[in-house]
Amino acid sequence: MPHIALPEGLPGILGPMTFRPETAKPLNELAEVLLRGESTLTRGERELIASRVSRRNDCHFCCSSHSAFAALQLDGGYEVVDAVLVDPATAPVSPKLRALLAIADQVQESGLSVTAEAVDAARVEGATDVEIHDAVLIAAAFCMFNRYVDGLATIAPPEREDYTEMGRMIVEVGYAASSPAPTEA
Amino acid sequence: MPHIALPEGLPGILGPMTFRPETAKPLNELAEVLLRGESTLTRGERELIASRVSRRNDCHFCCSSHSAFAALQLDGGYEVVDAVLVDPATAPVSPKLRALLAIADQVQESGLSVTAEAVDAARVEGATDVEIHDAVLIAAAFCMFNRYVDGLATIAPPEREDYTEMGRMIVEVGYAASSPAPTEA
Repeated sequence: MPHIALPEGLPGILGPMTFRPETAKPLNELAEVLLRGESTLTRGERELIASRVSRRNDCHFCCSSHSAFAALQLDGGYEVVDAVLVDPATAPVSPKLRALLAIADQVQESGLSVTAEAVDAARVEGATDVEIHDAVLIAAAFCMFNRYVDGLATIAPPEREDYTEMGRMIVEVGYAASSPAPTEA
Repeated sequence: MPHIALPEGLPGILGPMTFRPETAKPLNELAEVLLRGESTLTRGERELIASRVSRRNDCHFCCSSHSAFAALQLDGGYEVVDAVLVDPATAPVSPKLRALLAIADQVQESGLSVTAEAVDAARVEGATDVEIHDAVLIAAAFCMFNRYVDGLATIAPPEREDYTEMGRMIVEVGYAASSPAPTEA
């Protein structure tokens, strides 16, 4: 049961976002820019970073939903997602994304854990400063989203299939469009 | 030295925010709503939560800056801030804020670490659902901001005095107003 009285029937982050639309707006805008905005990383690649960090934080709702969003937008679908969730070092992704996922794993631990060696390794594989910046901020943002979702003890549907419909919606309309309207003062 | 080529002379989060104004906008809006928007918690109380979580994440820039913002907006100033940084359980703050800080400490560890007992204890001291929500989200957000600032190895001025001027600016104009303008496409 959630720790506070959230609107019923809304899984994961959708409950607190509907409960507090004032904060939902910038949160959805951040997700939209980071995961779907203009970038030299594909949307599927960025969702993989979100999914990986959420797994490391043991956030079932975020890992399930962003795995679904990644699988829908990647060649290879869940096969690639599952390999990244087990170990990015051996997953069938580009060497550049593999290096960015290694940075994301360090960010999940702590900002102070990110090494110059990991950043250099990403640069050797062709990562730009904007791509490194975005990998760090996506990983950091999911350390927030995961804590928000689980810190309020929200409800998460158990099965992978439960996230497919939500995935289709996000792929089609995005995060910002799913922001609840603020209540009038 | 920062891990990527950030604009020079801008300490802490100001470098990456100027480097990437597209993400700075929702980040500043989130800070503005959470820390300065309408609330039954004072601005000083909310900055204390930010400062405490930043200390636990060993983020020198965020802890120093939000400690300054808290000290400027609290009766008791740095005396209260320092007591909270050492141990909220013995700090001269209201029982309600003490209970919310205990929840924030749990969020800093992991969303899954937040206990029903800690939430009940806050409710016994008069905390509302919105206040509990906001304490969880402020703590979660600083687990993002701290990782963003340190994950890019930004530069942080060493001394408390170095943060006073920035503090006066934030108290006067807020976070959203300090957002850099996006570059035209």
